[in-house]
Amino acid sequence: MAENGQRKLRLGMVGGGQDAFIGYVHRIASRIDGDYELMAGALSSRPDVARSSAANLGIAEERSYTDYAEMAKAEAAREDGIDAVAIVTPNHVHFGPAKAFLEAGIHVICDKPLTSKLEDALALADVKPQNGAKFLLTHNYTGYPLVRQARQMIADGKLGTLRVVQVEYPQDWLTEEVHNKQADWRTDPERSGAGGCIGDIGTHAYNLARFMTGLELDRLSADLTSFVPGRQLDDNVHIMMRFKGGAKGMLWASQVAPGNENGPSIRIYGDKGGIEWQQIEPNKMWFCPFGQPRQLMTRGGATPIGADAPAGAEIRIPPGHPEGYLEAFARLYADFAEVIRSGKDNALLPSMADGVEGMKFIVAAVTSSNNDGQWTSL
Amino acid sequence: MAENGQRKLRLGMVGGGQDAFIGYVHRIASRIDGDYELMAGALSSRPDVARSSAANLGIAEERSYTDYAEMAKAEAAREDGIDAVAIVTPNHVHFGPAKAFLEAGIHVICDKPLTSKLEDALALADVKPQNGAKFLLTHNYTGYPLVRQARQMIADGKLGTLRVVQVEYPQDWLTEEVHNKQADWRTDPERSGAGGCIGDIGTHAYNLARFMTGLELDRLSADLTSFVPGRQLDDNVHIMMRFKGGAKGMLWASQVAPGNENGPSIRIYGDKGGIEWQQIEPNKMWFCPFGQPRQLMTRGGATPIGADAPAGAEIRIPPGHPEGYLEAFARLYADFAEVIRSGKDNALLPSMADGVEGMKFIVAAVTSSNNDGQWTSL
Amino acid sequence: MAENGQRKLRLGMVGGGQDAFIGYVHRIASRIDGDYELMAGALSSRPDVARSSAANLGIAEERSYTDYAEMAKAEAAREDGIDAVAIVTPNHVHFGPAKAFLEAGIHVICDKPLTSKLEDALALADVKPQNGAKFLLTHNYTGYPLVRQARQMIADGKLGTLRVVQVEYPQDWLTEEVHNKQADWRTDPERSGAGGCIGDIGTHAYNLARFMTGLELDRLSADLTSFVPGRQLDDNVHIMMRFKGGAKGMLWASQVAPGNENGPSIRIYGDKGGIEWQQIEPNKMWFCPFGQPRQLMTRGGATPIGADAPAGAEIRIPPGHPEGYLEAFARLYADFAEVIRSGKDNALLPSMADGVEGMKFIVAAVTSSNNDGQWTSL
Amino acid sequence: MAENGQRKLRLGMVGGGQDAFIGYVHRIASRIDGDYELMAGALSSRPDVARSSAANLGIAEERSYTDYAEMAKAEAAREDGIDAVAIVTPNHVHFGPAKAFLEAGIHVICDKPLTSKLEDALALADVKPQNGAKFLLTHNYTGYPLVRQARQMIADGKLGTLRVVQVEYPQDWLTEEVHNKQADWRTDPERSGAGGCIGDIGTHAYNLARFMTGLELDRLSADLTSFVPGRQLDDNVHIMMRFKGGAKGMLWASQVAPGNENGPSIRIYGDKGGIEWQQIEPNKMWFCPFGQPRQLMTRGGATPIGADAPAGAEIRIPPGHPEGYLEAFARLYADFAEVIRSGKDNALLPSMADGVEGMKFIVAAVTSSNNDGQWTSL
Repeated sequence: MAENGQRKLRLGMVGGGQDAFIGYVHRIASRIDGDYELMAGALSSRPDVARSSAANLGIAEERSYTDYAEMAKAEAAREDGIDAVAIVTPNHVHFGPAKAFLEAGIHVICDKPLTSKLEDALALADVKPQNGAKFLLTHNYTGYPLVRQARQMIADGKLGTLRVVQVEYPQDWLTEEVHNKQADWRTDPERSGAGGCIGDIGTHAYNLARFMTGLELDRLSADLTSFVPGRQLDDNVHIMMRFKGGAKGMLWASQVAPGNENGPSIRIYGDKGGIEWQQIEPNKMWFCPFGQPRQLMTRGGATPIGADAPAGAEIRIPPGHPEGYLEAFARLYADFAEVIRSGKDNALLPSMADGVEGMKFIVAAVTSSNNDGQWTSL
Repeated sequence: MAENGQRKLRLGMVGGGQDAFIGYVHRIASRIDGDYELMAGALSSRPDVARSSAANLGIAEERSYTDYAEMAKAEAAREDGIDAVAIVTPNHVHFGPAKAFLEAGIHVICDKPLTSKLEDALALADVKPQNGAKFLLTHNYTGYPLVRQARQMIADGKLGTLRVVQVEYPQDWLTEEVHNKQADWRTDPERSGAGGCIGDIGTHAYNLARFMTGLELDRLSADLTSFVPGRQLDDNVHIMMRFKGGAKGMLWASQVAPGNENGPSIRIYGDKGGIEWQQIEPNKMWFCPFGQPRQLMTRGGATPIGADAPAGAEIRIPPGHPEGYLEAFARLYADFAEVIRSGKDNALLPSMADGVEGMKFIVAAVTSSNNDGQWTSL
Repeated sequence: MAENGQRKLRLGMVGGGQDAFIGYVHRIASRIDGDYELMAGALSSRPDVARSSAANLGIAEERSYTDYAEMAKAEAAREDGIDAVAIVTPNHVHFGPAKAFLEAGIHVICDKPLTSKLEDALALADVKPQNGAKFLLTHNYTGYPLVRQARQMIADGKLGTLRVVQVEYPQDWLTEEVHNKQADWRTDPERSGAGGCIGDIGTHAYNLARFMTGLELDRLSADLTSFVPGRQLDDNVHIMMRFKGGAKGMLWASQVAPGNENGPSIRIYGDKGGIEWQQIEPNKMWFCPFGQPRQLMTRGGATPIGADAPAGAEIRIPPGHPEGYLEAFARLYADFAEVIRSGKDNALLPSMADGVEGMKFIVAAVTSSNNDGQWTSL
Repeated sequence: MAENGQRKLRLGMVGGGQDAFIGYVHRIASRIDGDYELMAGALSSRPDVARSSAANLGIAEERSYTDYAEMAKAEAAREDGIDAVAIVTPNHVHFGPAKAFLEAGIHVICDKPLTSKLEDALALADVKPQNGAKFLLTHNYTGYPLVRQARQMIADGKLGTLRVVQVEYPQDWLTEEVHNKQADWRTDPERSGAGGCIGDIGTHAYNLARFMTGLELDRLSADLTSFVPGRQLDDNVHIMMRFKGGAKGMLWASQVAPGNENGPSIRIYGDKGGIEWQQIEPNKMWFCPFGQPRQLMTRGGATPIGADAPAGAEIRIPPGHPEGYLEAFARLYADFAEVIRSGKDNALLPSMADGVEGMKFIVAAVTSSNNDGQWTSL
């Protein structure tokens, strides 16, 4: 059983066979709080890989599939069929499985971005889930306790009226031409869609900004570049943003910034104060009330706002015992388990609508960039 | 099954009932890599707490015990009995269960310090484990990838001959008199033993220094203090150390240092270079070759030593995706699963001998402090 | 004489009377290396302020002027006239004095930006200096040793072909409406010109980017905002940049970013590596060769590039003595001057008794150490 | 005149000839605020060095001495004799000059430690200064604004009753055997006294602890080591301290800690809070009120204690301008002095053309912004 005394939810997985990165992350995340057990999978479209991967993970032979549609149908028919499925395939194989499982009445946990094309995203949003099947998009950075605390502080007006949002996501792993399983599909328009860096990590940055600030984007002006010779998709993203209500922002995402392994960060300023957070040190956050010294907030630590941690920012271990990426990822899984059990949505969890918004952002950025930076609405 | 295709090991737990801290940590650690499943427990000596805690965790009623001796006997007798047990009780209840399970041929994972009295530790070391039962002491800070990398680099001579070791472990949670489940037994000589702060966290610091440097302590001079009025055990520890071979060191541990949530850190200097690491940012480590710029090493990142990560420093997710306390804890569980399956010891894992060394360290420190800082051998 | 054995240069100043900020900074800067002595000034256009400010600074009465044109003429005519003049007035009073002194054959040190209007700048550039008079614009951030070292490293190709330049300059002092001598002219189009934040600090950021990278800007796309109600000039600057040769960049300057006292910073990435520098910690700089660990370069410290510090990056005091060291040292001298003048002791100053105490400390430490750590009184 | 309108004090110097480090530092310190002018010196005991050093610094030939006793006598006799003398010789040549000048009625500024032998220190303390001559020992770290602010906060009870003091001063420049002017006398008992590292930097650390805390040392237990083969004096210092009133402390000083250029730091904890400060980032200080978030105090920045900066903690330039700012500024002045003297331009100096470029940048940015972000050339 789960740590909280509930029945473990039965989980399936589409994608995530041997050598996959994000499927492995999803599995760890599903285990941390003990809410799920992996029972079925279409781990690869290659039968041999699917079979050996499944065997390795203890999935019964008859519940190892090579076709997601068949899996959705078969699992829906079983008495002990899976409660939820995790979709961890490349972008262009999100739409099909998500649609199939939702229509089969099975809850869906889908990696981001939602799809590879905006029209697929819109079509997916129109799908009618059977049996109240729920949907979770794993914008995992929203699972960090301090990200959620910042969201609450901003909603509570601790920063006053927001003015400036500086969000970044630099990496360096594509600084040179590189060929491997991870790099290949991410730089291939067929599998990634029209955006490279913008779709892979730019959407994370944009989602983080939206999640924390609650602001709605009005228009953007983008300058996308592909620096590595021969690369078909952008590897550096420069965007200026104008939000509804007057706030302005900048977004920088790059996969060619040497020295930056993986560096989402965000700085948000209002007329009463600022907040600054960097994923590389996720257990710390600066709160800068105007005219007072900076305060270093910690995950679960003493707070300056005279309040308990906001709902959703629960921690597993005391402050000073650093938590990380996997724990934040697991927070989404744990919260979604609660959604599944209770049938009640959780506004903190990235949704289908967030996924559609992310696809619109990619399309707007590519369009603006193709039009010499013209300010473009979503 | 485990992520690696092996049968999950059946785990039992002694202690760790409702409101326990470290038992919860052990359970998460046991789940992260999928190597264990919790099947039995003596979660509390209070029958009602034991029962409800077990029910909550999905432990079958007949495998919920209130007495560890009975549990050891019963589980050893079952066909599907537990492979290993985690002992997560206060210090004075380590010796009994550890002895019982080892003698019942069941592998033991025991929290630190080994026991509350040195004589118990020595007696435990004399126990003859049945059926090759293995023993793991959870000095969890040794599970951090960069701690293991540092150990390897030092063993490889990257720092030259070691000279100075500065190790610290400040906390602040006992700055004022406090009463709760965690604080009460830690400040009670009956349950903790003769050392307070020295036993609770000083041993972690000492173990970290030994693990990383490979040095053997020759003598120490200690000054232990109990600052909070009425507190029976030390809450601040100052120790000077002389290692065999000539290196010197200082150890500071404190539970009354406001602003320090939980701050193990270590700095090691030799005649060719230095290494500095802080647990609060466990994914970073400074390597300071003498006469060259400081290099910021990252967990799994590019290394300056022209070598792959050393054995035991494997990471789960790429650099830039921070890992933390739970992942380091889980590393010990995963490595111990491999020890159990293979029957082969792993020199990186804290052992019974390390536990005895830790107890000798506590006794020597208390003795030296009681003798006005006299240099005292272990 | 100057530290280097040369005659001190005679310096004049236009602006910089009582309550001025930047004039005071220029005077300190002129004294540090002993190269200049202040001999004349038109410190204010208000005669009484000019007179009392000059008297205070030891400027002879006949060399205190209220009109810069008169000053230029008079000083040029003197045998012992000033060699150089520092112009430290608001932007709209740069053009006039700069022209006057250059045409009088007197060297000019002028604060930035050059003028308040582009046409003035172009006109000034057309002025023919007499007697080979030289001109210096005080973009002071280019004077940091590590900024100069970065420039040299980039010129030497250490970063390869440049791709991305992220430069920032956030402040927070104009977060709210504020009225004082500094704020008033900076937010007044008559005195500042058409740019507010862009002229006051955006130009510093842009100059820093050009200085370090050597890149030439091709085109920019800007979004300037005035967030504080009623403010006439921009207080936040968002700019995307395209450099000749293909590099891209972003520039953010803001005076409404709470928590940022004064934060110029720059990050530069090429296809071989990156460099990152922040003014708030000017003695450190990250050098990130692609595929290797980050290296922390220090002012005057060991370098990874196998070279001496480049020309112009000379340091006055060794690495590890942050440049604040000199100011702290000077604080003792200044306080002691006050003691000498007033005859009153200052309890903050280290005394003879402190010196005796220090000697006792040394003796006690040596004695204790020689006695195997015996606790020893002073 | 000085910046404050007072007559400049006439300064003499004993020691500080060519190649000296600390004499140069004293001269810069004496110039920054304009309070002193160097008029006389016994800069070296070697006549040729004394003469050429003096000439270089503009000291009149008749006021360049080779014997400090003669200098004291001669200067005391002059109408325009020096007001104060700076003694910047090795430790064993502090006593003689200090005594001579105090007895000649001339104020003394003396480098630390006071003397090379305790008996000299005691004898010096017994000297009767003539004409009210004052004495200053340059424990320069006490001059940092935040160090003084901490002292005041502690005196005001912001930390409550003090308990623990952790003070350090690591360096690495003596990691290997080294021979040069600086190293030779510091490692020679004849010139340094009985202490090596303890006297050179350990006293700084001890003084810093006393200055900030106001605590009086009761007893200490020390372990001094000389790690480098053949070195006669200690190069590593480990000390445990017991202060009057019950506080405890540790002091670590080392000159063999690779990676530490020059790192005084101090952490002070009481029953209400803590303060942490590191010299390497002197413009920042942590204030940790127990049970609240850490606050990052800055030099001259917003304070959490509802008070103006304490007396003596005055700053010259606003927060956010690290004190290195002045040195960087001064670099431009120094380089420009060279341009003036030589008539040769320096490509590193910001020019008229840079100023025009800056104005074009402002105009382009304003234009682009007014045209909805249109890409605009300069």
